[in-house]
Amino acid sequence: MEFRNQCAEYFRDLQDRICAALEQIDGSTKFREDVWRREGDGGGGRTRVLIEGMVFDKAGVNFSDVNGILSDEFARQIPGEGTGFSATGTSLVLHSRNPMVPAVHANFRFLTKGDKEWFGGGSDLTPYYPDRQDVVHFHRVWKEVCDRHPLVANYQRFKKWCDDYFYLPHRGETRGVGGIFFDYLETHREETFQFVRDCGDSFLNAYGPIVNKHKADQYTQAQKAFQEVRRGRYAEFNLLYDRGTVFGLKTGGRIESILMSLPPVVRWQYDFQPSPSSREAELAEFLKPQEWL
Amino acid sequence: MEFRNQCAEYFRDLQDRICAALEQIDGSTKFREDVWRREGDGGGGRTRVLIEGMVFDKAGVNFSDVNGILSDEFARQIPGEGTGFSATGTSLVLHSRNPMVPAVHANFRFLTKGDKEWFGGGSDLTPYYPDRQDVVHFHRVWKEVCDRHPLVANYQRFKKWCDDYFYLPHRGETRGVGGIFFDYLETHREETFQFVRDCGDSFLNAYGPIVNKHKADQYTQAQKAFQEVRRGRYAEFNLLYDRGTVFGLKTGGRIESILMSLPPVVRWQYDFQPSPSSREAELAEFLKPQEWL
Repeated sequence: MEFRNQCAEYFRDLQDRICAALEQIDGSTKFREDVWRREGDGGGGRTRVLIEGMVFDKAGVNFSDVNGILSDEFARQIPGEGTGFSATGTSLVLHSRNPMVPAVHANFRFLTKGDKEWFGGGSDLTPYYPDRQDVVHFHRVWKEVCDRHPLVANYQRFKKWCDDYFYLPHRGETRGVGGIFFDYLETHREETFQFVRDCGDSFLNAYGPIVNKHKADQYTQAQKAFQEVRRGRYAEFNLLYDRGTVFGLKTGGRIESILMSLPPVVRWQYDFQPSPSSREAELAEFLKPQEWL
Repeated sequence: MEFRNQCAEYFRDLQDRICAALEQIDGSTKFREDVWRREGDGGGGRTRVLIEGMVFDKAGVNFSDVNGILSDEFARQIPGEGTGFSATGTSLVLHSRNPMVPAVHANFRFLTKGDKEWFGGGSDLTPYYPDRQDVVHFHRVWKEVCDRHPLVANYQRFKKWCDDYFYLPHRGETRGVGGIFFDYLETHREETFQFVRDCGDSFLNAYGPIVNKHKADQYTQAQKAFQEVRRGRYAEFNLLYDRGTVFGLKTGGRIESILMSLPPVVRWQYDFQPSPSSREAELAEFLKPQEWL
């Protein structure tokens, strides 16, 4: 089987496994599935969204396998000759109902353009009421994955890449507490694919214990409103800076699948300032890049 | 008095007059004012926000008068030699509580860069439950303003400019029903300033009757939720495409004053589809550029 198809098969199966596990965690409702194809062929995808569950306000898990031609302008911004490209991967964003449960994002993908091909991906955590133990657990899982693949992966490097990428310069803060991020991994194809599979297979180990630990925590309406204010930063990041969003919009992806990552309800409150020493004020300390392990 | 200062004086006074009128319309609460200065001089501004009024969920009216140095990269995207710039103007975005009342945006400004100087501005309406009479009234006011200044203004041209500018390519729809938009008006400085003053002085004629007509309309919670879904498009436009937002963020503007334009509460509902023939479905017909007069 062509290598790209092996990747696509892995990513499709990963979507199945993650969705099945998230339905178990939520316990109240199922994913809705939308199968879509790009106009004029060029592949398609399988978007799954779980809405208004007991645990998740909105959980989106995408699989896609697309190919086509990039605009000249956009092609120049991406490595590799020419304008032909392909991309396959799994991406997910989980917005929890309970503000004590962090949001999480993960994306693992294989791309080709001209004679170049590479893997990219990562996973990062966005708490609203952060729990240091959760952050350490999340980072530890990703460090262990990286440590199992020393030829192609490096936790310190990928952790810093994540901090650098998920940064909102206009706010002077990171989107969340990071995790790992990597892109353009183009050497040692087989070993990198093993690493990426290990990442995909480890996602539920990284996030599952955190959501299960906090999904029944008590919270107030004021804490829910704070989550909605903070989700504004999530939307700002995705619309102002996220390369995945721009890539999707520029390559004619399915709009609802791309913007599925946006939070269900967002509150932009003018000049919101948490009370000094409140739990809301403490969050700021977590949104500075730092060593968690 | 230096011409730029005359402009700034007009824009500051316009802010006062508009805020006073909006407080009258709202009747329940007052604007909060934040006076700010840019770090290391370079001017500043006066941000006024009215929150959770009877009529307005969030009404922001900014005055600013700033100057400084643009980054090389950003300077290349703007006419005029060098990197020194100044900008003064009034900008406002009004988000009404009642979904039967359209949101509205207006901005009038005078910029200089190197040896160039120009006016820009415009005003556009974003209804959720559109009323054709309102749209016609709004456009008629702006046409009459343009018609009073034939040397420098042209309604047809500025109306098309508005349709082209406030367009969301990924959604295939305009942000609202348009109005007028103009930029880089650099000849006939005195006559253009007269036109811009006429615009500023006409804003309340354009919007006032619309808000007064609908502010006591009955509405349901479902209609309020539809307004919040549609406000998602407003946020998408401002964060993905709006040059004013980008200009502000790139020139080190005050973040809360720039993002004041964002709606107070936004709902991103996966694959939202209004029922066929519903009033919500009818909105789509208004979001295609068309002749209103």
